[in-house]
Order: sequence, then C-alpha cells, then structure tokens
Amino acid sequence: MNIKLSLQYDGTAYHGWQIQENAVTVQEIVKNALSELTGEKINLIGCGRTDAGVHALDYTCNFHTETTIPVEKIPYALNSRLPEDIVCFGAEVVPDDFHSKNSAVAKRYLYKILNAPFPDAFMKNYAWHFKYPLNLEDMQKAAEAFLGEHDFIGFASSGFTVKTTVRTIYSLGVSKKNNLITIDIKGNGFLYNMVRIIAGTLVFAGCGKLSPDDMARIIASGERAEAGITAPPQGLFLKEAYY
Amino acid sequence: MNIKLSLQYDGTAYHGWQIQENAVTVQEIVKNALSELTGEKINLIGCGRTDAGVHALDYTCNFHTETTIPVEKIPYALNSRLPEDIVCFGAEVVPDDFHSKNSAVAKRYLYKILNAPFPDAFMKNYAWHFKYPLNLEDMQKAAEAFLGEHDFIGFASSGFTVKTTVRTIYSLGVSKKNNLITIDIKGNGFLYNMVRIIAGTLVFAGCGKLSPDDMARIIASGERAEAGITAPPQGLFLKEAYY
Repeated sequence: MNIKLSLQYDGTAYHGWQIQENAVTVQEIVKNALSELTGEKINLIGCGRTDAGVHALDYTCNFHTETTIPVEKIPYALNSRLPEDIVCFGAEVVPDDFHSKNSAVAKRYLYKILNAPFPDAFMKNYAWHFKYPLNLEDMQKAAEAFLGEHDFIGFASSGFTVKTTVRTIYSLGVSKKNNLITIDIKGNGFLYNMVRIIAGTLVFAGCGKLSPDDMARIIASGERAEAGITAPPQGLFLKEAYY
Repeated sequence: MNIKLSLQYDGTAYHGWQIQENAVTVQEIVKNALSELTGEKINLIGCGRTDAGVHALDYTCNFHTETTIPVEKIPYALNSRLPEDIVCFGAEVVPDDFHSKNSAVAKRYLYKILNAPFPDAFMKNYAWHFKYPLNLEDMQKAAEAFLGEHDFIGFASSGFTVKTTVRTIYSLGVSKKNNLITIDIKGNGFLYNMVRIIAGTLVFAGCGKLSPDDMARIIASGERAEAGITAPPQGLFLKEAYY
C-alpha cells in the first residue's frame, strides 16, 4: 500500500526537509514517527528539499507500508508522535507508482516580505523584514519578465546537479496587504534557491537597485551576479505540490 | 523627562513581563537595554503584568531619564539592543506624572482559539487549539452576561491582593474567521487570570459544557468552580492599554 501524506511544518527549528548527518531534519522526524507507528522500516519520499528555516503549508510525501492502521486514522496517530511544529493533516492511499518527487508536475511557493520601518516580533521567523520603501508596481512589472520558459541558470545557487536549468513559470504575483508583501510563484520546477533569488531580485526592482525594464536582459544573461541577492530563508513557504 | 514606550512582544520565550529572580522576563530585558542605551539606572514602569507565554501587541511602559538621545531615535536604538521577539515601535515624551500602570483607564485583550480537528504548526504558540466543535452563537450569547459592572471574584485565580474584585467590562466580542475564533474584551481592569478564565468559560458555553443562559448566575455565584477552565496562556494577547 502506498500512502500519501499532507504535512505542514514550521521550518524554524529544522535543517530543512532532507535527512542529513548531525542535524535535525523534518524528514527524519516524520520517518521515525512513522516507523514507531507502523513497526516497519520506512522509506519516506518527499516532494522536494526545503532549506533550513524554510516552511511548508502543504508538503506532500509518501511511503509504502503493510500497516493495518486505517488510513483516515494515520494523521491523528502520527500527530501524537510528532512535535507541535510538524502537523499531518491528510493521508490517502495512492497508486503504487505514485512518487512525491517524480510525479509532481508543478510547485507553488509563497515568499513574504515585511516592508515596514520596524520589525515585527511575531514575524521574525516568517518574513523577510525589509525596512526601505518598496514600490509594489515596480515589483509587479519586474515579475512579468519571469513568466514562461527560460533558462534560469543565473537564478540558481551552486551545489546542485540538474539535467537542465530550463524551467517554466506559470504565474508570479506580487500583492500587498498592510505592510506584508507576498510573492506567489508557480512553476513546473525550481532550481536550488531559485525562488529566494527571484524574491531578492524583485525586492531590488522594488527599491530601485535594479530596473524593472532590465529583468528580461538579466534573466537572458544567465549570470548570477546580475540578479539580486538570495532572500533569507524564513520568508519562504512551500505552498503546494501539484500532481 | 518621562518617556512612554510602545512595545510588541512574543511572550513564548519569557516568564511574563515582571522581573523575577531566576527567570528571564520582558521587563528585565527592556530595562537592561535602556540602561545600556542611556548609561543610567532605569526604573521601567509597565502597564501591568502578563503571564509566561502571554503576548503583547501594544504594551505601554515608561521611564524617567536625563538622556540627550532624541526621543524619535529611541525605538531604533533600543531595537538594536533587543532580541527579535521584543520590538519597540514608539517613544514619546509624556507629562512627569504619567504612570503606565496607575494612569491606565482601560485595557483590551484578545484571546485566540484555533477550532479545527488538526493543530496548526504555525499557531502552536499563538492560539489555544480546541478540536471539538464550538457554537459561535452560544459563545456570543454567553458573552453578553459579562458586560457591565460585576464582582468577578469567581473569575480570578488566587495569589493576588487587590482592593476590590469589582470590574467593568465595556465590550466583549466573539468573532470567527476561517478556523480562528477571537475573543475581544475591553474593561477598566482585570483580575489575575480573569481574561483566560472568561475565555475558558466561553469555550465551555460553546461546546455545551455550560449553558449560555446560565452565565449570569455563574458570575453572581462568585464561585471559581462554577466557571470554566483557565484557558492556556499562548492564546492571550494584551492588545492595548488606554489613558
């Protein structure tokens, strides 16, 4: 039986999703809880990596099991074994060939920026505090250049091996509510740090360090140095993976 | 010179506002930062105590100083010396006789309840997770009984000495947005744990453990055992003190 889980996690206390030595990760915590619950050795497949401090609102993972626990009871049983900053809110049986990473056709991320003179005590782990004024229209104009298929090699941090650096962005919205700016991006896939570099570049467009009109050229250049900074991890939320 | 500060704090990491031995408190942190900033011994007067884990959205405190730092620069200078979970967002010179506690004529608190089958990874420190269904109309009906002047001796935890247990509630609203219920209460003063006991009592009214029609009798009884439980601290936010 192949079971798909829907998780939500506050990434503040974790070194990202993926299991690594000498660091606490979300994958390890959930895998161990599932092992305890089922009495089996679990291979937990996630929809992708998230970095240290990055959050997830609806993270998909799956595992194969022989357990007799009714699938609808798994979220409750799992939550009783998970710390409070990781919550399972859904479980369903999926076809045997479903694979959280390989079956995903798209992903959506949110990036949150607190644009205010003072920081916010409650958002220190959940937004990038940027205290200089940001022009929303410039950010929205800059965002348009990212839509569609591009080689995003200039919007990736080194350290990852991928077959191609070409990705398609389906939508990229920039909205503001009170002092909080949200970047909402959906694409068929993202390179390492790509969302955070796009966020940093849109912020540079919003504060006048880069021109919105220059975005197409910057993307085409393929040069990391042409883009903006890598925005800090705490503003990033994996919203959803699509299948 | 008497300076009034407006603070916001996430109370998760603190043993409340008031300085105590062997525990880290907000008052101590802010007082020490002000001492560093001004080079003076500071007597920091707060608008009231908050318990461990309780938050503040607009906390008023004041201190007398001979500093020559321009008052409008104090929030920035102070924030650079404060941890990220305590933020100063306002400072102004007030008359010499202004006293954050004694001059306050009213206070407003919010109490937040996550009413959903599953917990929320991001609200673990900012709401009471109550998983059984709550009837909003019953809570609203129950709330009406608290309005006006009453002896609230049955809605206080022991451990505090006060001249009188009579308090006046000016407003008490119960609203719901998605799965989040917010209790919004304003009064001329509150006894120890009074807001949390009112919140616990309204929740008991909402889940059928108490009848909304029985509230007036429960208040009049003056018996702590008649009211609901003391709701946990993490859902409570001091919204504002009025002068």
